[in-house]
Amino acid sequence: MASMAAGFARTRSPVAPFHRTQPIHFGAHLEFSVNRFPGVGTSRRCEGRGIRAALRVQSNLIDPDGGSLMNLIEPDGPGWETKRREALLSSIPQIKLSRIDLEWVHVLSEGWASPLRGFMREAEFLQTLHFNCLRLEDGTVVNMSVPIVLAIDDSQKQAIGENSKVTLVDDNNKPVAILSNVEIYKHNKEERIARTWGTTAKGLPYVEEAITNAGNWLIGGDLEVFEQIKYNDGLDRYRLSPSELREEFTRRNADAVFAFQLRNPVHNGHALLMTDTRQRLLDMGYKNPILLLHPLGGYTKADDVPLWWRMKQHEKVLEEGVLNPDTTVVAIFPSPMLYAGPTEVQWHAKARINAGANFYIVGRDPAGISHPTEKRDLYDAEHGKKVLSMAPGLEKLNIIPFRVAAYDKKQMKMAFFDPSRSNDFIFISGTKMRTLAKNLESPPEGFMCHGGWNVLVEYYRSLLPSEGSGLRESVPA
Amino acid sequence: MASMAAGFARTRSPVAPFHRTQPIHFGAHLEFSVNRFPGVGTSRRCEGRGIRAALRVQSNLIDPDGGSLMNLIEPDGPGWETKRREALLSSIPQIKLSRIDLEWVHVLSEGWASPLRGFMREAEFLQTLHFNCLRLEDGTVVNMSVPIVLAIDDSQKQAIGENSKVTLVDDNNKPVAILSNVEIYKHNKEERIARTWGTTAKGLPYVEEAITNAGNWLIGGDLEVFEQIKYNDGLDRYRLSPSELREEFTRRNADAVFAFQLRNPVHNGHALLMTDTRQRLLDMGYKNPILLLHPLGGYTKADDVPLWWRMKQHEKVLEEGVLNPDTTVVAIFPSPMLYAGPTEVQWHAKARINAGANFYIVGRDPAGISHPTEKRDLYDAEHGKKVLSMAPGLEKLNIIPFRVAAYDKKQMKMAFFDPSRSNDFIFISGTKMRTLAKNLESPPEGFMCHGGWNVLVEYYRSLLPSEGSGLRESVPA
Repeated sequence: MASMAAGFARTRSPVAPFHRTQPIHFGAHLEFSVNRFPGVGTSRRCEGRGIRAALRVQSNLIDPDGGSLMNLIEPDGPGWETKRREALLSSIPQIKLSRIDLEWVHVLSEGWASPLRGFMREAEFLQTLHFNCLRLEDGTVVNMSVPIVLAIDDSQKQAIGENSKVTLVDDNNKPVAILSNVEIYKHNKEERIARTWGTTAKGLPYVEEAITNAGNWLIGGDLEVFEQIKYNDGLDRYRLSPSELREEFTRRNADAVFAFQLRNPVHNGHALLMTDTRQRLLDMGYKNPILLLHPLGGYTKADDVPLWWRMKQHEKVLEEGVLNPDTTVVAIFPSPMLYAGPTEVQWHAKARINAGANFYIVGRDPAGISHPTEKRDLYDAEHGKKVLSMAPGLEKLNIIPFRVAAYDKKQMKMAFFDPSRSNDFIFISGTKMRTLAKNLESPPEGFMCHGGWNVLVEYYRSLLPSEGSGLRESVPA
Repeated sequence: MASMAAGFARTRSPVAPFHRTQPIHFGAHLEFSVNRFPGVGTSRRCEGRGIRAALRVQSNLIDPDGGSLMNLIEPDGPGWETKRREALLSSIPQIKLSRIDLEWVHVLSEGWASPLRGFMREAEFLQTLHFNCLRLEDGTVVNMSVPIVLAIDDSQKQAIGENSKVTLVDDNNKPVAILSNVEIYKHNKEERIARTWGTTAKGLPYVEEAITNAGNWLIGGDLEVFEQIKYNDGLDRYRLSPSELREEFTRRNADAVFAFQLRNPVHNGHALLMTDTRQRLLDMGYKNPILLLHPLGGYTKADDVPLWWRMKQHEKVLEEGVLNPDTTVVAIFPSPMLYAGPTEVQWHAKARINAGANFYIVGRDPAGISHPTEKRDLYDAEHGKKVLSMAPGLEKLNIIPFRVAAYDKKQMKMAFFDPSRSNDFIFISGTKMRTLAKNLESPPEGFMCHGGWNVLVEYYRSLLPSEGSGLRESVPA
């Protein structure tokens, strides 16, 4: 990862014009209400970040789920220093976080999963598994389709005993967060997997990575995180929190925000779709629709293109003007990838509501994969879109279905598929694209900008044992 | 079954004072609004049954889901005769119903699953699998946790082709119903099973019976049933529709209706719970709480006590005064049993709302079974109660958790368990009870009324190959 970070440092500055280090200018019209607990809030003006509380930004952006954006990151301060010291006390049990656990801490800390205040307790876990949504105390229903849980094993459970709080530490035993008022309950893995993925077949990537060998207990509680989660991989500047994204959209006077979730390189078909969506929003009367190009940054399966290379590819796409930097914000969505199809697409959409998006572009078979043991796709390609459009708690989100784009041989570019002259089109799947790049071959002119394609080729070249000994694969038709 | 029906005929008259054949007297205060389609209704007074429409009974009873009770049974009449003849036409494809399919036709026809108007189309199926609830056009959410679907195979799908309607026929090829405006979609059995049962382990009773060998397509549509479903097993008089139950509760001036779902014989612990519940409702200020003792009448697994014997047992319980006939209505719930734990208990509760119950008694591990391949219960014993209490669309139902009853050796009767003198109590599980009866032994005095116990012994004796050659089993501790 160090070499990748170094490699990234050599690239030009990121295309997203907003950086974490840039000072935020709040307009006079911005009102924050500071809620430590929902319903126990006071309203006051403030400037700057780091308020350990829920921030309610009064702007034209869509409301976050539950009304307030959770911020579980503690600001520096004397009281906080005491807590930090307390976390190091030997009397408080420690739980070591896996990489995926840490990604969920990141997700929770910045409020992507608002109104969740920490890892799920059993009542939230059960509602997620059975209903894909949570009913709040005031009767409001918010979407929550994937379990955000922390597993512990028998010995950890025993060590925690009657303690009401635990310290969460990273791989180097550095305290990351405190989990308070903990609740420990059974981790029925089979049921969790069956209800989340709709299968229990062996070989689901996230399951193998994070569930199969996890402990038999789950621990929920209120999370307090010591500082923003950083990965020091050269990409932290892209890791904008929902609050920072909202500030950026407000700064840009966005009157519509449309989110595009992706975990693949951007080709010109994607770009066409995003450009077309913006035009449709303008036609609807919006004056300044902003695109949130939002690659997923957490765990992905081994044969996906790694985040660092994807970010480099996205950068080229904006540098070469395929997407317009003035109307695009590129940022990283810190969630791990579950590959849970219709269940997961709801999470992808819900988290973007919290980041201020009121339009969500959904493709064919979102978050889908091949069935791990049968020769078919795991999910019906249309189910993701259908389930998303009916999901409880997402009624306020506008769903924009993907229009099918394909390579138009006549026009020599990616275009919306026209069934009346279907012979003019060829479909280049993600698999085909990756195989071409692996074989260091070129796609048809106009499929992807040159700079972007070169990044892909460079990535696959970097995987080769030695220069020039490329293992050629046949390109799927 | 014929001999069982004959045997039943020899027993005394049923304890439920309400019979299908009894004329219904509508009070002047009863208003019906006749809705062929929700939202397109007119309101008028009427007398008698058989209105092919949704009936909204204006009384103090809880509203049915969606506001109107579905009645999909066609009244006799000239227009209807045409339809019936049409159903016999060779141009309309026929689908033969299995016993379980027929039970679902029964369930749908009488409005237990209101506001469903027929077998689920894909949008309803997906909402059921993912959300356990349906969002209606007006935004209302109703609970719907189990798929009510009709499977067809490839050849049936081909035979239906572009036809918009099919005739549903019973085992003797007699037309039972028409399904119109049909929609055919894929039957992904693995996903259906995983999301409904939370496991895909082989050996789930309903799955083996109704899904494993079913076709790879599902057909949804609007159902029109020719006449009330009858089984001619001597028990049809107990098969009261939700509308008939509502009429009965209204006739009795019930101001609270508490439902008790069961698929086992009633012992004195159950009776104590029901009597105690009534007392608690009286203490709450209700003047006339009525118990709906509501055994499940559809498919059950092979080692459950068959319906006919259970009804005979329930009859004894009321005859011997263990439950008070004046405040009890005994009727049969026509649904098949899925053994799907927390998912199914929602269905059991929701259907009883449609029958007018506003209180629902929920036990430990409702609709639970042993894991089919592992040595443990399939579901956490507390999950059913928890999931039920949080289920969307069931907010209007009052959930009454089961209090634990056990045999009190000191008092020589079933009593609520008192942990301060736990040594005085013994727990007699359903398995233990059945094993005692199989061995033609007696339980402790006061566990169950004599007449009821004798029915059980009689049932198990009837299973023996010849009189007196009882295969003794060890009684579990």
